[in-house]
Amino acid sequence: MRNAYIQQMAAFNDILGDICDKSGIAMEKATNSLLQADLALAEEVITEHDEIVRLSRRAEEEAFSLLALQAPVASDLRVVVSGFQIVADVDRMGALALHVAKVTRRRFPNKTLPEEVNGYFAEMGRLAVELANSAREVLVTQDPKQAAEIEEQDDAMDDLHRHLFTVLMDREWKHGVAAAVDVTLLGRYYERFADHAVEIGRRVIFQATGSAEPTADVSK
Amino acid sequence: MRNAYIQQMAAFNDILGDICDKSGIAMEKATNSLLQADLALAEEVITEHDEIVRLSRRAEEEAFSLLALQAPVASDLRVVVSGFQIVADVDRMGALALHVAKVTRRRFPNKTLPEEVNGYFAEMGRLAVELANSAREVLVTQDPKQAAEIEEQDDAMDDLHRHLFTVLMDREWKHGVAAAVDVTLLGRYYERFADHAVEIGRRVIFQATGSAEPTADVSK
Repeated sequence: MRNAYIQQMAAFNDILGDICDKSGIAMEKATNSLLQADLALAEEVITEHDEIVRLSRRAEEEAFSLLALQAPVASDLRVVVSGFQIVADVDRMGALALHVAKVTRRRFPNKTLPEEVNGYFAEMGRLAVELANSAREVLVTQDPKQAAEIEEQDDAMDDLHRHLFTVLMDREWKHGVAAAVDVTLLGRYYERFADHAVEIGRRVIFQATGSAEPTADVSK
Repeated sequence: MRNAYIQQMAAFNDILGDICDKSGIAMEKATNSLLQADLALAEEVITEHDEIVRLSRRAEEEAFSLLALQAPVASDLRVVVSGFQIVADVDRMGALALHVAKVTRRRFPNKTLPEEVNGYFAEMGRLAVELANSAREVLVTQDPKQAAEIEEQDDAMDDLHRHLFTVLMDREWKHGVAAAVDVTLLGRYYERFADHAVEIGRRVIFQATGSAEPTADVSK
């Protein structure tokens, strides 16, 4: 029974890792579509999102079948329950990448971003992909130390996000309100993407040690 | 056993309803603090948020103990699992009300909103409270028909949100970029608050009928 549980749990974590991976790829493509006003690439992200949704449903079913068939108890039960919560996080990461692609499509053939903030979004995109990769890795390794590092990676995202707001709020901003609104929402999508990766790290710590409280950081 | 399950499930739904209620009250106070630049009221929301966090943890523990002690199967098991997901929604609603209060505090003693958009936020605040109340009700009644109506209520929020963006994007907007950034983020907080209420409705439908797919609306 315990062996079957371990096997099924590993299969479940593989699907979660796969969704993380696909969300990271989606965010990478979405960022490129945004920076280059590349409609075809944006459409690709939008089409491929269906696969993320499909995988999320499959992950939920897998976790559900784990509960129903293996009837885990005690700490195993906590791990499965926290698995359901991780599904929600990876699923949302995919949705946020989709949002970025949709903004690109909405503004096409224009570029959404003023040249001035391109660098910020290139870097936030890079960090988002890195965070998704880290989240995928800790889902596989279940290493709480590695999981704790995701939070530090997120600090870089928060710094960038704060700087971006400084640029926006500056009297020198010459790109008007409409561009500022887009930049504000896009910045939030990247920040929230990163938050969900952090949340996955927290849940893995919780799964591994049972001690860290998997509380969402509501300051975000 | 089945009886104990039903009792414990009712107790769990009561806590969820209570969090909905408190989130609605928090959003009402946060909206008033925003409209009147009332720092004391904003601080109240921020302080009272701890209670929402505490209740969310208690709800999770309650659901967990339900799983562990009652070992529900089949549709009961699905209901409990979906209960965990509802905890995440109500918890997030509280966090979004907290965000609004924090913006008020950050801008104090200034008003965050230009006079021109006060009406939008007064109305979005009213709708948010209404949505939280509806979510609380359906958690208690478990009535799928009533749950389906939450989605219609949310249409009004979406309409307002869209109009708000029209105001922002208008060339007549005279309040500068900084105010536009605040209005953009605040608008998003209200919209997301409503989305989570809709999501609760969807999950209650799923719990009651097992048929509706509890998929997050990723267009948001």
